[in-house]
Amino acid sequence: MSSEPPDLSQPPHEEVRIRRSAKRARYDRETIDAIVDAALIAHVGTVRDGRPVVVPMLCCRDGDWLLLHGSPASGTMTHGRDQDVCVTMTLLDGLVLARSAFHHSLNYRSVVVLGKAEIVRDEEERSRALEALMERLVPGRQADLRPTTEAEIRQTAVLRISLAKASAKLRDGPPGDDEADYDLPMWAGVLPQQAPTIRAPASRIAGNAAAMRSGERS
Amino acid sequence: MSSEPPDLSQPPHEEVRIRRSAKRARYDRETIDAIVDAALIAHVGTVRDGRPVVVPMLCCRDGDWLLLHGSPASGTMTHGRDQDVCVTMTLLDGLVLARSAFHHSLNYRSVVVLGKAEIVRDEEERSRALEALMERLVPGRQADLRPTTEAEIRQTAVLRISLAKASAKLRDGPPGDDEADYDLPMWAGVLPQQAPTIRAPASRIAGNAAAMRSGERS
Repeated sequence: MSSEPPDLSQPPHEEVRIRRSAKRARYDRETIDAIVDAALIAHVGTVRDGRPVVVPMLCCRDGDWLLLHGSPASGTMTHGRDQDVCVTMTLLDGLVLARSAFHHSLNYRSVVVLGKAEIVRDEEERSRALEALMERLVPGRQADLRPTTEAEIRQTAVLRISLAKASAKLRDGPPGDDEADYDLPMWAGVLPQQAPTIRAPASRIAGNAAAMRSGERS
Repeated sequence: MSSEPPDLSQPPHEEVRIRRSAKRARYDRETIDAIVDAALIAHVGTVRDGRPVVVPMLCCRDGDWLLLHGSPASGTMTHGRDQDVCVTMTLLDGLVLARSAFHHSLNYRSVVVLGKAEIVRDEEERSRALEALMERLVPGRQADLRPTTEAEIRQTAVLRISLAKASAKLRDGPPGDDEADYDLPMWAGVLPQQAPTIRAPASRIAGNAAAMRSGERS
């Protein structure tokens, strides 16, 4: 066992190395997991008849796996299983308004996952995966719902992809303008674009009082 | 010239026919244009070495074209040009909370565009495309900025894809529950998820007073 910290600036596989704007790349699982956990929709790319197909799917993370929810009859479920897929999740955080059109940008966090998509066949595993997706959609709601029936579980398909080949890319912070432009008489800055998020009910959060205080502040 | 209204339930090309949940499909340009005009980020799928690659890019519509903004050195700009691409834009409108896990859903509007991506080579055209992208990002801001230099225009690449092969898919409205579940004692409904939008400055809107009144209400 090495005591060296892992080099977070290096990709786990050459396949996922980010070449453009490499300073915005992250390869550590902490960053990747946080982005995947905040994403609700993944854009899933497959190849059909040699051509790309990209469809949006509900996603969530379960440990080292990315789960995708769909109908058993959907094209991506039937064409994507056991095939190479590219799953991309993008969170738009802000519009970056600079002092020139050229330096306008977006603040974003994105993750790209490469791998083979496996269909979750085992009914118990699928049931667990559906609970994870439900928990992602509205934390804590599952407990209030009637139990899911076996027929309902059979009518839902779940794909999973390992997070072993994943990379993140993000931009954060204010606009970066040309030196000569900073004195121009115009507003520049970031307009937030985050969608609202739903928190778990307070009673289910460990360290309840502290969590509620932090919730009140945000 | 036929006076028959076009059949909006049919796709313009078999390639873009939606098979799953066909009742949610739309093929009319009015619906497609409205979704594209509301999307800021497109997920662009290409095929490289037989495998799918999906990357997020800033997008906007210019008439019958979908424009994508990027660096001339990016993989999608170099690999995507003159190749088949699939560009998907998804707007998440709401979380649909039903009375059973199974009937939970998302309200969304999405568009899929299939076609060959062309690089916009002409400098004047590219300059116009960049203005369209800027106008999309923050309506009306262009007029306040210093002029874009020729060097800046050269450092930016734009891909365009015809909207001729496009389809839209959307879900709207409240949850649809099993008859027996409607009496269960729990809240059900839609939690909105729209990101904030930016309007053009009031002075540039035709019918200024009416527009401002409608702006105040929304």
